[in-house]
Amino acid sequence: MNSSTSLRVRLPVLVLVFEVVMIILFSLFVTYDDNANARLQNNETNPMENSLYRDYPYFADVQVMIFVGFGCLLAFFRFYGFSGMIFNFLTATFAIQWAIVIQGFFQFYYDGKIHLGVINLLNAEFACAVVLISFGAVIGKTSPVQLLVMALLEIPMFSVVEWAVLKYIRINDAGGSILIHLFACYFGLGVTFVLYRPSLNKGHSKEITSYQSDILSVMGTLFLWVFWPSFNSALTLKGDDQHRAILHTFIGLSSSTITAFALSAVFNKRGKLTMADIQNVTLAGGVTVGASVDMMISPVAAYVLGIMGCTACFFGYRYLTPFMARHMRIQDQCGIHNLHGLTGLISSTAGICGILLATEETYGPSMYQIFSHRAPPVGHPKLLELQKLIPGLKPGLGRTAQEQALYQVAAIFATIAASAVGGLLTGMVIKLPFMASPSDKDCFDDDLFFDVPSDFDKAHQALISFEEKSQMSSIDTKEVSKSV
Amino acid sequence: MNSSTSLRVRLPVLVLVFEVVMIILFSLFVTYDDNANARLQNNETNPMENSLYRDYPYFADVQVMIFVGFGCLLAFFRFYGFSGMIFNFLTATFAIQWAIVIQGFFQFYYDGKIHLGVINLLNAEFACAVVLISFGAVIGKTSPVQLLVMALLEIPMFSVVEWAVLKYIRINDAGGSILIHLFACYFGLGVTFVLYRPSLNKGHSKEITSYQSDILSVMGTLFLWVFWPSFNSALTLKGDDQHRAILHTFIGLSSSTITAFALSAVFNKRGKLTMADIQNVTLAGGVTVGASVDMMISPVAAYVLGIMGCTACFFGYRYLTPFMARHMRIQDQCGIHNLHGLTGLISSTAGICGILLATEETYGPSMYQIFSHRAPPVGHPKLLELQKLIPGLKPGLGRTAQEQALYQVAAIFATIAASAVGGLLTGMVIKLPFMASPSDKDCFDDDLFFDVPSDFDKAHQALISFEEKSQMSSIDTKEVSKSV
Amino acid sequence: MNSSTSLRVRLPVLVLVFEVVMIILFSLFVTYDDNANARLQNNETNPMENSLYRDYPYFADVQVMIFVGFGCLLAFFRFYGFSGMIFNFLTATFAIQWAIVIQGFFQFYYDGKIHLGVINLLNAEFACAVVLISFGAVIGKTSPVQLLVMALLEIPMFSVVEWAVLKYIRINDAGGSILIHLFACYFGLGVTFVLYRPSLNKGHSKEITSYQSDILSVMGTLFLWVFWPSFNSALTLKGDDQHRAILHTFIGLSSSTITAFALSAVFNKRGKLTMADIQNVTLAGGVTVGASVDMMISPVAAYVLGIMGCTACFFGYRYLTPFMARHMRIQDQCGIHNLHGLTGLISSTAGICGILLATEETYGPSMYQIFSHRAPPVGHPKLLELQKLIPGLKPGLGRTAQEQALYQVAAIFATIAASAVGGLLTGMVIKLPFMASPSDKDCFDDDLFFDVPSDFDKAHQALISFEEKSQMSSIDTKEVSKSV
Repeated sequence: MNSSTSLRVRLPVLVLVFEVVMIILFSLFVTYDDNANARLQNNETNPMENSLYRDYPYFADVQVMIFVGFGCLLAFFRFYGFSGMIFNFLTATFAIQWAIVIQGFFQFYYDGKIHLGVINLLNAEFACAVVLISFGAVIGKTSPVQLLVMALLEIPMFSVVEWAVLKYIRINDAGGSILIHLFACYFGLGVTFVLYRPSLNKGHSKEITSYQSDILSVMGTLFLWVFWPSFNSALTLKGDDQHRAILHTFIGLSSSTITAFALSAVFNKRGKLTMADIQNVTLAGGVTVGASVDMMISPVAAYVLGIMGCTACFFGYRYLTPFMARHMRIQDQCGIHNLHGLTGLISSTAGICGILLATEETYGPSMYQIFSHRAPPVGHPKLLELQKLIPGLKPGLGRTAQEQALYQVAAIFATIAASAVGGLLTGMVIKLPFMASPSDKDCFDDDLFFDVPSDFDKAHQALISFEEKSQMSSIDTKEVSKSV
Repeated sequence: MNSSTSLRVRLPVLVLVFEVVMIILFSLFVTYDDNANARLQNNETNPMENSLYRDYPYFADVQVMIFVGFGCLLAFFRFYGFSGMIFNFLTATFAIQWAIVIQGFFQFYYDGKIHLGVINLLNAEFACAVVLISFGAVIGKTSPVQLLVMALLEIPMFSVVEWAVLKYIRINDAGGSILIHLFACYFGLGVTFVLYRPSLNKGHSKEITSYQSDILSVMGTLFLWVFWPSFNSALTLKGDDQHRAILHTFIGLSSSTITAFALSAVFNKRGKLTMADIQNVTLAGGVTVGASVDMMISPVAAYVLGIMGCTACFFGYRYLTPFMARHMRIQDQCGIHNLHGLTGLISSTAGICGILLATEETYGPSMYQIFSHRAPPVGHPKLLELQKLIPGLKPGLGRTAQEQALYQVAAIFATIAASAVGGLLTGMVIKLPFMASPSDKDCFDDDLFFDVPSDFDKAHQALISFEEKSQMSSIDTKEVSKSV
Repeated sequence: MNSSTSLRVRLPVLVLVFEVVMIILFSLFVTYDDNANARLQNNETNPMENSLYRDYPYFADVQVMIFVGFGCLLAFFRFYGFSGMIFNFLTATFAIQWAIVIQGFFQFYYDGKIHLGVINLLNAEFACAVVLISFGAVIGKTSPVQLLVMALLEIPMFSVVEWAVLKYIRINDAGGSILIHLFACYFGLGVTFVLYRPSLNKGHSKEITSYQSDILSVMGTLFLWVFWPSFNSALTLKGDDQHRAILHTFIGLSSSTITAFALSAVFNKRGKLTMADIQNVTLAGGVTVGASVDMMISPVAAYVLGIMGCTACFFGYRYLTPFMARHMRIQDQCGIHNLHGLTGLISSTAGICGILLATEETYGPSMYQIFSHRAPPVGHPKLLELQKLIPGLKPGLGRTAQEQALYQVAAIFATIAASAVGGLLTGMVIKLPFMASPSDKDCFDDDLFFDVPSDFDKAHQALISFEEKSQMSSIDTKEVSKSV
C-alpha cells in the first residue's frame, strides 16, 4: 500500500464537496423542461408527440456507447482492465452530472432556470464523450482523482467554447467533428504534454495486452461501431437530414473498416493482422464524416471520406504517435490524435467543401434549414418567399457559402487553440502533489487502485519473475560478452 | 458424477410436464391482443398507431437487461460463471412463459381469453425480474431444478399480490419499488432462510471472483445501468410522465454511482476500490427513485434519493448482510436486501412523501391522471369539469392525499408479509430431497451441472492443491507451535 | 511465419480493387432514397413521418445481432477467438457494402440509379446474415481472403435468387426462413463439401473451447436471442403483422430454449448441461417460426413450432452432423444444417400450412395484404370491394391458397438447388491456391493470421507440450505393449 495514492480521503472529499455543490445548484436552478412538466400539459397536448420520443432512442444508443462501448474499448491493457472500464464509468457519470448543470447554464437556461429534459442528457453525454476521448491520452498514468478534476475543468471549458462557437461563430458541425473531436483531442494532448513521463518512452513492462483484454476491447469497438450512426445523427434536424446522417456514418465506417484491415496486413512484417489497428483504426470513418454528415455530399463522398480518414489515422498511429512521444513530449496513450485529431481535421475540411458546394439546385429550399446561417435575415423579401415553401423557416444571417466557410475555419482554429490552452492549464492543475498520481512503476496496474482477485496477483507475479529472469539473463549475456 | 444432482431425469421431466401444461393453456386460453389481431384492423386503423410502437422499444431494452444485464452480473463467481449466466437464461425464459399465462389470467383476461400483445411480454418480464432478484439470494447453492420450481411458485404468488394490490389497494408505484423490488427481496430472503447452510457461514473456498469474472459482472452492471431508465419508465403514462421517469432514474443512478465510489474508497482499509461495491451499490439509485419516478418531485429530490439509497445499500452490504447471515440464518448471497430491500423501503417512503406533497398547483389537472385514485368518482361534478380539461380522464375513488398515503403503507406491509410467507413456503418445497440440491462442498461450482472445458479443471485443480498446501502448512504451523 | 498464408499482399490487393470498384459503382449509380433527399422535401413533408423512423429501430437491433451477436457466438474456440470475432467483423462489413450495390440493382434501382435509404442497409444486413451463416460451416479452416471471396460470390447469387423468387415465384416468407436460412445453409454446405479436409474428421487438438470462450459465445447467443424478434419482424407489414411477428418469435424462442436445456440434460451421460447446446440449440425456435411469423397461426402454434425446431436441431447436432462429416464429406463446423437447415425446412412447411389454413374469417379483409398474391388481380370486381375496406390494397395475382402453397414448394426447392450449386462453385473458387488457405495443422489457430499477445503463446505452448507428452506416453504404452 502506498499512502500517496490512497483514495481513502481524496476521492470521498472530492465527491462529497461536488455533491453538495450539485444539490445546491440543482435546487436553485434546475427545473423540468416543458415536455417533462405535468402542469404544462393540457387537452391539446398529444402525449405521443412529447420530445421524449424523438430524443430517447438516440440517447439510449449513446448510453451504450459511453458506458459499454468506451468502457470495454479502454479495458485493453492486460493489468488495467478494471481501471479502464471503471474509471470510464466513474468519469462518465461524474462528467454528465456536471455537464447537465454547466452546459445547462449555457444552452437551456431561461426564466432563471435550467430546463431539464432528455435533450439535456443527450447533450451532456456528448460533453462527457469529450472528456472520455481526452482520457484516452492519459489512460494508465492518472488516478481517478486526477480524472475527476480533469472532468471538472474540461466540462466548463468545453461548454464555453461550444456556446461561443455556436452562438457567435455559428457553424455547421452536425457530427461534432470540430466541437467534440478536435476539442477533445487537443485538450487531451495539452494535458498529456504537461504530464510527460520520460521513463515511459522506453516502454513499460505492463503496457501490454492479454488475449482476453484484446477481445474485450474489440467488443467495445463493435458497440461503438454499431451505434455510431445514432451518435452522429442524434442532434441533426429530423427527417431527411437525420436519414442522411445515418447513411453517411454507416458508409464511412464500412469503407474505413475494410481499409483498416488492408493497411494492417500490408504494414505487418509477417502479413498478419494487428489487434490495435482493428480496435481503433476501423472507427476512423465515423469521425471523418462528422462535419458534413447531414449534407447532400452524395454517398460516394462518404465512402471516400471513410477511406481517407482511416488512412490518415493508420499512418498517424504508425509514425506520428511515436514521433510526438519522442520529440514533442506528447505521450498520446490511445492515439487520440490519430482517431480524433487527424480525422477531425479531414472532416472539418470536408465540411467546408460541403458548404462551398451546396446549391439550391441540390438541396431545394431546405438548404436554408441545414445551412441556417445562410438563410436571409429578418425582413429580407426572399425570407418571406422561402417561408411560403418551408413554413417555420427561421431567419438567418444571410451569409454566402464563402463567408460560412471562413467562419468554419475560424471555428476550427479557435477550438484547437482554446482546447490546447485549456488542456495545458488542466494538466498543470492535476499535476499538483495531492492528486494521487501513480509513480512510473505503478502505471498500467489495477493493483494500485483496486482490491484485485487472487488470480490477478498470480499473473502479475509471473510477469515480474519473468522480467527478473530476462534481466538476469541479459546481465549474463553482458557479462559473457565482457568476459569474451 | 453425483447421481443425486444429475439433471438427466429431473430437469427434462419438469420441462416436459410444464410444456404440456403450457400447450394446453395456450390452446385453450391464449389469443391475440386486439393490436395483434388481423381481423380487427379496418380502413380506420393506422398501422403506425399500433400499441407495438409504444411498447416494443421499452420491451427490447428490458430484454437486454434481463438476459444480458442480469446474466453477466450474476456470473461474478470465479468457478460459477456458466451457472450464473445460464441458470439466469433458463430461469428467465421459464418464468416469462409462465407469467404470460398466470399474470395473463389476472390482468389480460376477458371474453374467456388471455389477450396477448407485447404489453403482456413486458409485464411478464417484470414478473421475471422478480424471480431473478430472488434468485440472487440463493445463487451458488441451488440446482436449476430448484430454480425452476421457485419460478413456478413465485410467479403465481407475485401475480396474485400484484393483482390484489393494484385492484383493491390501488397504489402509485410506477417503477415497481413496492411490487417488484420489495416483493422479490422478501421472497428471496424467505427462501434463503429455509435453505440455510450453517457451514457456508465459515466461508467457502470457491466463493471468490476472478479477474475475468469481475469484469464480466461489471459489464452486467453497465447494461443494467444504461437501460434502467427504460425499466423504470416502461409502464408509466405516456408523455411527460414517462419523460420525468427517465430523467429521475438517470439522475438517481448518477448520484448513486459517484456516492458508491466515494464510500467504497473510505471504507477500504488501503483506500482502494472494491469491485463488489461497483457491481452492486452503484445501481441502488435506480431502485430508490422507483416509487416516485413519475411524480413532480423535482430533479434535486431524485439526486438526493440516489445518494440516500446508495448509502443505505452500502452500509447494508457492510454490516447488515453479515449480521443476518450470522444471527438470523439469512444467507443473502448477492445482498438483495441491500440493493432491493432497503432501497425499496426508502423509495416507498419517498413515494408517500410525493403523494402527500402533490398539489394541483404543481401538476395542473393532470394530477388526477398520475394519482388516478384521487380523481373524483363517477358523477362528481368536479369530474366533469376536469374532463373538459383532460378529455378521457377516468373517474377515480376521490381519495385524499392522506388516504392514498395510508393505502400505500398498507400495500407495503401487505407485500412484505405475503412475499416473506411465500418465500418460506417455496423454500420448504425446494428443500425436498429430489430437487438436486448441491452439497455444501459443491456450491459455487460449475462442474456440478456443466460439462466444463479443460482449462476450468486446471484452474480448479490449482485451487484445490493450493488449499491442501495451505491446510498442510497450517497443520505444520500448528504442529510446530505444539512442539514448541 | 508461413508465406503461403501471409495476408500482406493478398488481402490489401483484394480490398483495394474492391474499393475502386465500389467507388466507381457508387459514383455512377448510388443516389439518395427519396426519404433522404433534401430536394424532395417540401412544405407538405412531415419530417417525423420519414421512413427512417419506421426502419431505423429495427436496423439498429439487427446491427447488434450481426456485429456483436454473431461476433461473440463465433468466438467459441479456445485459440480462435480473435479470428471468430474479427473475421465476422471484416466479412460483415465487406458483405454489407457489396449487398448495398448488388441487391440495390435488383431491388432499389429505378431512373438509372440505386436509391439508398436505411431500408437498403437493413436488406443488406439480411444478405450479410446469409454470408455469416454460411461462414459458420467453414469457420476455423478458411483464411480471411477466402471469406471475402466467398462473400463476393455469395451476395450476387443470393441477390439473384431473392429477386427471382420474390418477383417471379412470389412467396410469403416474412422471417426469411426460405430465402435467408435455407439459402445460407445449403450454400455453406456446398462450400464446405468442396473444402473437405479428411484429416479433420479425426478431430483436431485445437478444436476445443475454454471457459472464457464458452462464456463469450453464450453472450453472443443472448444478444441474438434478445433481438431476434426484431430480426424476424423487420420486413413485415407495419401494424398488427409486425406485432404478431414479434410475439411469435419470442414465444418460439422461449419454448425452444427450455426444450434445449431438457434435451441437453437427457442426452448427457452424466446428466449435466452441455454449453454447445445452450449456445446453439436454444436459438432454433427463432428460425422455425420464420416463414409463418406474420400469419394468424395462433400463439400455441408458435410455441409448438419452437419445440419442434429445437428437437430437430438437437438431434441434428447429435446424429446428422457427425454422419455427414464421416459419410458425406460435409464438415459442418458450427452445425448450420441443424440450426438453419432443418429448422428452415420445418418453418417452410409450417408456412405452407399457414397459407392453406388462412381464411377471411380469421384475417378479415387484411388477408389480402398479408397474402398479397391471393388478392384479386387488376380489374376484378372483388378488388374494388376490398379496396373500399382497405384503401391502398394492391392488386394481386388472384391465387388460391393451394396455388400459393405450390409456389412456396417451388421456391423451397429452387432456393435449395440454387444455393447448393452456388456453394459448390464458390467452394471451387476459394480452393484455388493463392487464397491463403490454412494447412490442416494451423486450423482453429489465431496465431496464423494475428499478432497474438504473450499469454496466448503460453497457453498454446502448454497445449502443445501436453500433446507431445500424451503422444510420447502413448508411444511408451505401445512400445511397452510391443515388448510384452
